[in-house]
Amino acid sequence: MNSVMTQAVRNEVDTATLFATLDAIQAQPELAHFRFRAVNRWVGGAHNRSTIKDFYGAGQEDTSRAAAFELDAGEPAVLLGSDTGPNPAEYLLHALAACLTTSLVYVAAARGVHLTEVESTLEGLMDLRGALGISDEPRNGFERIDVSFTVKGDAPTEKLREVVERGRQRSAVFDMVSHGVPVTVDVSTP
Amino acid sequence: MNSVMTQAVRNEVDTATLFATLDAIQAQPELAHFRFRAVNRWVGGAHNRSTIKDFYGAGQEDTSRAAAFELDAGEPAVLLGSDTGPNPAEYLLHALAACLTTSLVYVAAARGVHLTEVESTLEGLMDLRGALGISDEPRNGFERIDVSFTVKGDAPTEKLREVVERGRQRSAVFDMVSHGVPVTVDVSTP
Repeated sequence: MNSVMTQAVRNEVDTATLFATLDAIQAQPELAHFRFRAVNRWVGGAHNRSTIKDFYGAGQEDTSRAAAFELDAGEPAVLLGSDTGPNPAEYLLHALAACLTTSLVYVAAARGVHLTEVESTLEGLMDLRGALGISDEPRNGFERIDVSFTVKGDAPTEKLREVVERGRQRSAVFDMVSHGVPVTVDVSTP
Repeated sequence: MNSVMTQAVRNEVDTATLFATLDAIQAQPELAHFRFRAVNRWVGGAHNRSTIKDFYGAGQEDTSRAAAFELDAGEPAVLLGSDTGPNPAEYLLHALAACLTTSLVYVAAARGVHLTEVESTLEGLMDLRGALGISDEPRNGFERIDVSFTVKGDAPTEKLREVVERGRQRSAVFDMVSHGVPVTVDVSTP
């Protein structure tokens, strides 16, 4: 392995492919149009399961995934479930953590920062009177979400903080969770 | 099993416990304060993993979960990953589907509607030029999310639609995804 190859893969991100992807999209912006999907089926009570496989992106339906991912949701006993999986709000915390992390790891790779550790703890505060329909005053969702990152790597503190900040600014899920997204809900009752 | 017990469990939701929970919270609103959590660790590249176990609710730290849930996130090859799990935006779709579904199933149980099938397909549209930092014009996250439910049960169409609509109005994740939540991001670089 020569030194160019060694440098091209950083934080297990292939930066050569990363920069080639950015160039391709700059030349042909429609390659950036993606459609992600999930199909969810109710199993019983608080138990439901999503299947995630197909998506559209880079100008075509993607066929690279050999198998579907299956995700089970549930609720703990105190919320009338039998713990068949994390609950939906916990999945949202995971989505946020995962996106912030991937985003900062890619930024670090692009900027030549070798990371050795990225850990985050997230906590969301919820007054369930909203979601339970007991009161209209508390909102249904989290009042706030607090994220704490611990980041280690071969760069000075200032640079590491910059990488986290830039990752936050570019994170898809951070954008959605902090600013909201228009959602349409259609119902068929065959 | 007598007929009272038969009726108490509907859609695999114990409605007696549901109504008792609502009564308890009305009498003591602080029981509704919950704190949900996730701890995420970077594994390498687009691969990171969340551990979900502890939460606070109903006036105490919950200890009912024997084991932690582990969730692996990733990206497909076209987004520089190796498909170690659904990507963060797909997890957000799952969180939304799961919450809308649980919400409407609980509403149906409370209102005496027996459901036989609940399925939803979700699609989110994203112009990746935002998240990739190529352009400031498209946002980072989904431009919109479309949810399509198919719901079957022992009630007339109008009632089934009402149950979905009420579920949407009370869903924690629908609220968060459509209206946004304040998120703080703290960084430690030890």
